[in-house]
Amino acid sequence: MMTGDEYKASLGDGRAVYFRGERIADIAAHPVFASVIQRVADGYDKLKAAGPESAYFDPPRNQAALRRLARAEIDPVAGLTHTSLMTLMTAAERIAHRRPQAKDAVAAYVREARAKDWRIAECISDSKGDRSKHPGEQQDPDQYVRVVERRDGGVVIRGAKLHISAAAFCHELMTIPTKAMRNGEEDYAIACCVPVNATGVHIINTMAGPRAGDLRDSPFSTRRQMPQGFVVFDDVFVPRERIFLEGETDCAASFAHSLGLWTRASNLADACDEADLVVGFAQLVAEANGLEKIPHIRDKIGDLVVSATLTRACFEAAIANSRMGENGMMVPDELFTNAGKYQSTAAHASMMQILQDICGGSLITAPSIADLESEAVGQFVRKYMGTKQQVDGAYRLRLLQAIRDLSASEFGGQRAVSKLHGGGGLYAQRVVTRGRYDLERAKRLALEAAGLEAPPV
Amino acid sequence: MMTGDEYKASLGDGRAVYFRGERIADIAAHPVFASVIQRVADGYDKLKAAGPESAYFDPPRNQAALRRLARAEIDPVAGLTHTSLMTLMTAAERIAHRRPQAKDAVAAYVREARAKDWRIAECISDSKGDRSKHPGEQQDPDQYVRVVERRDGGVVIRGAKLHISAAAFCHELMTIPTKAMRNGEEDYAIACCVPVNATGVHIINTMAGPRAGDLRDSPFSTRRQMPQGFVVFDDVFVPRERIFLEGETDCAASFAHSLGLWTRASNLADACDEADLVVGFAQLVAEANGLEKIPHIRDKIGDLVVSATLTRACFEAAIANSRMGENGMMVPDELFTNAGKYQSTAAHASMMQILQDICGGSLITAPSIADLESEAVGQFVRKYMGTKQQVDGAYRLRLLQAIRDLSASEFGGQRAVSKLHGGGGLYAQRVVTRGRYDLERAKRLALEAAGLEAPPV
Amino acid sequence: MMTGDEYKASLGDGRAVYFRGERIADIAAHPVFASVIQRVADGYDKLKAAGPESAYFDPPRNQAALRRLARAEIDPVAGLTHTSLMTLMTAAERIAHRRPQAKDAVAAYVREARAKDWRIAECISDSKGDRSKHPGEQQDPDQYVRVVERRDGGVVIRGAKLHISAAAFCHELMTIPTKAMRNGEEDYAIACCVPVNATGVHIINTMAGPRAGDLRDSPFSTRRQMPQGFVVFDDVFVPRERIFLEGETDCAASFAHSLGLWTRASNLADACDEADLVVGFAQLVAEANGLEKIPHIRDKIGDLVVSATLTRACFEAAIANSRMGENGMMVPDELFTNAGKYQSTAAHASMMQILQDICGGSLITAPSIADLESEAVGQFVRKYMGTKQQVDGAYRLRLLQAIRDLSASEFGGQRAVSKLHGGGGLYAQRVVTRGRYDLERAKRLALEAAGLEAPPV
Amino acid sequence: MMTGDEYKASLGDGRAVYFRGERIADIAAHPVFASVIQRVADGYDKLKAAGPESAYFDPPRNQAALRRLARAEIDPVAGLTHTSLMTLMTAAERIAHRRPQAKDAVAAYVREARAKDWRIAECISDSKGDRSKHPGEQQDPDQYVRVVERRDGGVVIRGAKLHISAAAFCHELMTIPTKAMRNGEEDYAIACCVPVNATGVHIINTMAGPRAGDLRDSPFSTRRQMPQGFVVFDDVFVPRERIFLEGETDCAASFAHSLGLWTRASNLADACDEADLVVGFAQLVAEANGLEKIPHIRDKIGDLVVSATLTRACFEAAIANSRMGENGMMVPDELFTNAGKYQSTAAHASMMQILQDICGGSLITAPSIADLESEAVGQFVRKYMGTKQQVDGAYRLRLLQAIRDLSASEFGGQRAVSKLHGGGGLYAQRVVTRGRYDLERAKRLALEAAGLEAPPV
Repeated sequence: MMTGDEYKASLGDGRAVYFRGERIADIAAHPVFASVIQRVADGYDKLKAAGPESAYFDPPRNQAALRRLARAEIDPVAGLTHTSLMTLMTAAERIAHRRPQAKDAVAAYVREARAKDWRIAECISDSKGDRSKHPGEQQDPDQYVRVVERRDGGVVIRGAKLHISAAAFCHELMTIPTKAMRNGEEDYAIACCVPVNATGVHIINTMAGPRAGDLRDSPFSTRRQMPQGFVVFDDVFVPRERIFLEGETDCAASFAHSLGLWTRASNLADACDEADLVVGFAQLVAEANGLEKIPHIRDKIGDLVVSATLTRACFEAAIANSRMGENGMMVPDELFTNAGKYQSTAAHASMMQILQDICGGSLITAPSIADLESEAVGQFVRKYMGTKQQVDGAYRLRLLQAIRDLSASEFGGQRAVSKLHGGGGLYAQRVVTRGRYDLERAKRLALEAAGLEAPPV
Repeated sequence: MMTGDEYKASLGDGRAVYFRGERIADIAAHPVFASVIQRVADGYDKLKAAGPESAYFDPPRNQAALRRLARAEIDPVAGLTHTSLMTLMTAAERIAHRRPQAKDAVAAYVREARAKDWRIAECISDSKGDRSKHPGEQQDPDQYVRVVERRDGGVVIRGAKLHISAAAFCHELMTIPTKAMRNGEEDYAIACCVPVNATGVHIINTMAGPRAGDLRDSPFSTRRQMPQGFVVFDDVFVPRERIFLEGETDCAASFAHSLGLWTRASNLADACDEADLVVGFAQLVAEANGLEKIPHIRDKIGDLVVSATLTRACFEAAIANSRMGENGMMVPDELFTNAGKYQSTAAHASMMQILQDICGGSLITAPSIADLESEAVGQFVRKYMGTKQQVDGAYRLRLLQAIRDLSASEFGGQRAVSKLHGGGGLYAQRVVTRGRYDLERAKRLALEAAGLEAPPV
Repeated sequence: MMTGDEYKASLGDGRAVYFRGERIADIAAHPVFASVIQRVADGYDKLKAAGPESAYFDPPRNQAALRRLARAEIDPVAGLTHTSLMTLMTAAERIAHRRPQAKDAVAAYVREARAKDWRIAECISDSKGDRSKHPGEQQDPDQYVRVVERRDGGVVIRGAKLHISAAAFCHELMTIPTKAMRNGEEDYAIACCVPVNATGVHIINTMAGPRAGDLRDSPFSTRRQMPQGFVVFDDVFVPRERIFLEGETDCAASFAHSLGLWTRASNLADACDEADLVVGFAQLVAEANGLEKIPHIRDKIGDLVVSATLTRACFEAAIANSRMGENGMMVPDELFTNAGKYQSTAAHASMMQILQDICGGSLITAPSIADLESEAVGQFVRKYMGTKQQVDGAYRLRLLQAIRDLSASEFGGQRAVSKLHGGGGLYAQRVVTRGRYDLERAKRLALEAAGLEAPPV
Repeated sequence: MMTGDEYKASLGDGRAVYFRGERIADIAAHPVFASVIQRVADGYDKLKAAGPESAYFDPPRNQAALRRLARAEIDPVAGLTHTSLMTLMTAAERIAHRRPQAKDAVAAYVREARAKDWRIAECISDSKGDRSKHPGEQQDPDQYVRVVERRDGGVVIRGAKLHISAAAFCHELMTIPTKAMRNGEEDYAIACCVPVNATGVHIINTMAGPRAGDLRDSPFSTRRQMPQGFVVFDDVFVPRERIFLEGETDCAASFAHSLGLWTRASNLADACDEADLVVGFAQLVAEANGLEKIPHIRDKIGDLVVSATLTRACFEAAIANSRMGENGMMVPDELFTNAGKYQSTAAHASMMQILQDICGGSLITAPSIADLESEAVGQFVRKYMGTKQQVDGAYRLRLLQAIRDLSASEFGGQRAVSKLHGGGGLYAQRVVTRGRYDLERAKRLALEAAGLEAPPV
């Protein structure tokens, strides 16, 4: 297992990583990336300290292990890696009838990945071009990642995967089809793993910098965010043994569905604590403002509590109704997982609005920590940010800066959009929830209540 | 154990029951009440058939037993009885430090009630008079049930309990304080059981009759509804052995809290199937109208599915997090129970609106079954209610009548209001949810995320 | 102009009117219909008293006249008649390029209708059969009203119009296509007026009776509701001069659009006062319960006020932006009319839920007026319904009965569904709102703000 | 009248302006402030070009003038100035009975301000300290701006005004009490105007910088935002003739109410176009993604259209119901103004969520313009951001950057919070709406519908 320092060193492998139009030579030393890379490095150190007993990357074999799906437990990149490994193992099982060799190939890959202590990014969303057309109908055939050449030892792929989290922080890119493919779209039915520093891979990143470059004003985002971006495959060679699907169009969706299962469960696990965090901030700021007993403030916090509890109820229900899969992995219930993901996502905007409402205008006009420390105006800042003897102006300023960083910053905007689209979008979540719901049982209940026979189909 | 027929005979005990200004001589034969009394009688027969193994009235000792809290399983009145028994046992335990003799008194009462196979109504809400004043401050001192006289063998009580379900269908009235009492309000701190036919008890009922007197147009309500009403105690004598609280003002709220626990869990259990029922009706009518593939109809059903699943998730989470109480009863988790009760109640109006929206105007203009059977116009009704070969006009008419009966009838209105106020009202649910939520943990999460120490209190 | 009594006598014209499977001989004397027919008769007397100056049936020529669109001003049936007349005049103008003779035919009909002081029902929604198929594709060709025979002096029509308000109370049936027709569907492109007592017309009614037959418990519905139902045309002859469209498929939608314009404006005008009524009831009951100063009650009433004010704002904006049409009629703005109709409809369910929440459980358990007047229990009802010296039990009981009648009765259910589907349904309202909105201007604003040129189309 | 360049020069008057802990020497040249100051300068040039006929700063005398309340018409700072002038004139009228000299003082001040072409900031919110205590009860007496010394020619004030927009860009600070004062709080009842460069004035600013310092990625915010911040009065002398209230505690709220009237009307006017802008962006991005015909996308845009139209309906209704005030100023209707302000604010979060939902994940992962222009990766960016022949990758990237800048950036967060708290907060808006609503009329409607007399009060 690598140490955090070894991990940081491992990123210097020649990878082509870009930010704001520039190629970054040493990403671990870059001012915008360093603080979040450090968090990943800390994750390595934590796992090393825990030793093999941590079993962090093992498939969950019981409900207790499922509870630990929350990505934040170690660090987000370790979480992505866990999800990637589970996705490959689940999908290999599901496509075994069509491509039996995938199971061994995946098993070998998983062994290597764990032995080398790699981190793996989930590369799924294609650039998609005209959304009203299928992959094979696009004006530009590269709008979905595809095989452009077949050689003896492997294939050459071209295309781009978009909205990829933390690709620049990983060692490997798990590259899988974004959806089902049709006959004639065999070249688009490709699933494989590609090293980040493979020739032809380019990673173009977006990430919110700390506010005005001062980490102190952004205590939340500087530790929690991840870069997101485009992973471009500009004719990248993939050797045969790293290919898990090639041309089986009818199995192309199995990878996306497997990823969906694990990533939504992980998202939901995270969403529980995130919602509690919002409740906690709301209560802290109400107390700092001296308003925690005002009825309408209490009612608003009550609304936040209900929303947070509904999210957690779905997680608890998904765990309580988990089932042991054929391959010995404990699988969370998909109905409750999806409903919880949908609920927490749909509620995000209004929860943030309630939090902002409770904070008052100081949420955005609170001066910076540099102002607080300024000789010229620091005394005014401390004086007028304080509310009463027990609430020091500096404490209240830092509290408001943290909430601003969470809810009203560039990071806050990115987080809102990530929640909306991560794991498939609100619309998709609702479709999946309906698909997993036992509609026939509901119809039987209704017919029985009405005293009716089902009509002929 | 009584048979259904014995139960019906047992109601002829001289009870003073009123409906629309008239005293009812034989309630089991009354046209408005007969069909719902039959359902209670059927419940007796079902339990008798199941024999002692049914253990229906035993305290739940494990999660499986908790799942059976749904009142509809046997019949609503059996459910009320179960809740009443659990309430008395729970409260006796909670007040043992102040009134140790309550435990034996309750145990003896429970034995007798089960031996005689009684049904018991939950009498809690007082008439309350001016809501801005305490019991002891009312212009009319009888606005909360109180002891007006103490005799050797017992006490005389006066007052009224409002919004009581099915009192006229029960044998006993579990009469408990509606809330905490203050010093000086000892006369209002009275909990006891009173026979329905005790001298001085008057029950004034409200209940929706079937539409236009024709049971066939109201297939749903004629089996599902219960009478609700006022239970007046006009100087009723209660013997000592049936008194479980007398004057211990500081314990007065224990009964209401115990009832809240069991009644909300039971409400939530019912709400799960009720929400599924709405989904089922929505899907059936969409299919009958030939619209089940229209995107906005599918989206609406998806919304119903999400709402139904959130309710069920709370129930599942409450069961999965249940705890064994000191008296050997398995107690559902109160946080999830309350959040689920709140969610299902708050969503009721919009779920009904969506269902009505999917039905179309025929929901209220569909002719009656009498029209369908009319020589003069029956052919037109059948012709124009049909939509295609597989959907017969008579089937669609009956389906719409059932949905109307559920959602747009007098019964539908009563059901909406019952859901809103049963088990304490939306506002109270949210207050309880906030009270059961671990706010301190949420604050710790937030302080940690912000890198702050808690301010001095 | 007729008096109210003459109107009632005019209904005895042999019309075939059915209710609950029975043909009604004398509708004006029928216990369920008499009280609402009386309201229509009162409308006649009011208009007669006002004399020709009332100009009630004149087309609106200025904003002041538009304000009087509220149907409730005189009575609902006078309102339907006004809308029918305006619809015919507007549509005749719009189809003049294709059927120039319609203008004179409509003018002559309007003169006759006003001279004879007729009331006219709006017959539009067809039975529609399989909603996924066009009129010409139905298994049963009669699922849309159509011409089945052409004779020298006119045509014979067959089919049914559904969800028709007050047809049994009118003299004439304005019968128009429900939507656009295609080539080959010429027989379905028929607009005409038919006397209610024409041979072959059958009207099958639904209407909520007063609760338990006692008008006193239903003070609201017994005056406000209208029968709704099916109007069956079982091969009805229509003379040439009463036909306004025959075969011009490309003009078939003009009638529906004209009706939509006037009916939605009228619905919106009514919705303003209806929303204010809900606010008024909420405040009255809060005061009667002694809770009008409790913060969460005040907040809920504030929510109702905002909703009522948004509805009224749309009406005010529709009037302020009305335009003079070519035919000298002042036409309310369609964008604001539709948005207001949508808003008031979408908000209905939650407004009712808030009102019910404020009322408390007594909304459905309040005894009847018969109970109040009962010798046996009247004293208890008055005592326990009272809250304080100023709030008499009888007043509070009557107030709650009125709110129950409005919000939680069979009438309340019918009203909710009528609002949802009247004037076209929520989905249609939103589609029309988007269609009337200046989307191109919005896109220009956005391009300008982004500093972009529009892309080539 | 000043030119834009003269305005920029006028800011070099020695004012004490701070940003991120540093005093700014030349604000017009500061990289973060320059682009928005330019917009104010452009406003000067526009008004100069329009000449005296523009009448921009005249009180509105008719409905047409009221329509021009939108602050964005010229520039936001001209808008603030107009609101400040109207506020002083309105308040002077309202307090004339207690302080008749205020009218002349205000008139003289307005003449001078217009002659010197000043821009004026609205300074109202005090730092407030412990929100549960009155000004006179605070531990620190300076938590509300107060007179600390009275001299012959004027007074000395101390305290801070928070959340002040654009103070650093103005010449004058209109400083008024935040709310009503009590007896004994005479020192807090102070309204006056203070030059920005007066000795003792310190302005501490917050403002979102452009993303990563590149103006091109933030086309929206770099022109639309204003600095917000603290205005500290550290013992500032105010001469007598610039004082409009001094000690009249019973009139202290008149200034805040006058400001509320004008600022909310102005906010509402702006909110109309802002909502249309969101609709426009949603439609543009749907078209760029090729999804504009997908039903659920159309439905979402329909929801945005309804929300935008409700906002505009309130503005139209406020104008249509405006009234001529005693001082010859046309005053918008306060009921509709407040309801519209509430609606647009409450809907903001969900409108933004819908917009983000329509955009897809590219909203936050779209590369920067620097990436687009990069030699290394520009070709990939253009290729994979394009969707079809008509939609160039560069166009789509710029469109998404503009939407990100509006909805998911630091500026977006600040804008959301500004909307929430500007003009008084959601809670206050609803309270004011309820206060302006004719509750007595609503109660009369309800009593009449129920056939009841009002109970004795």
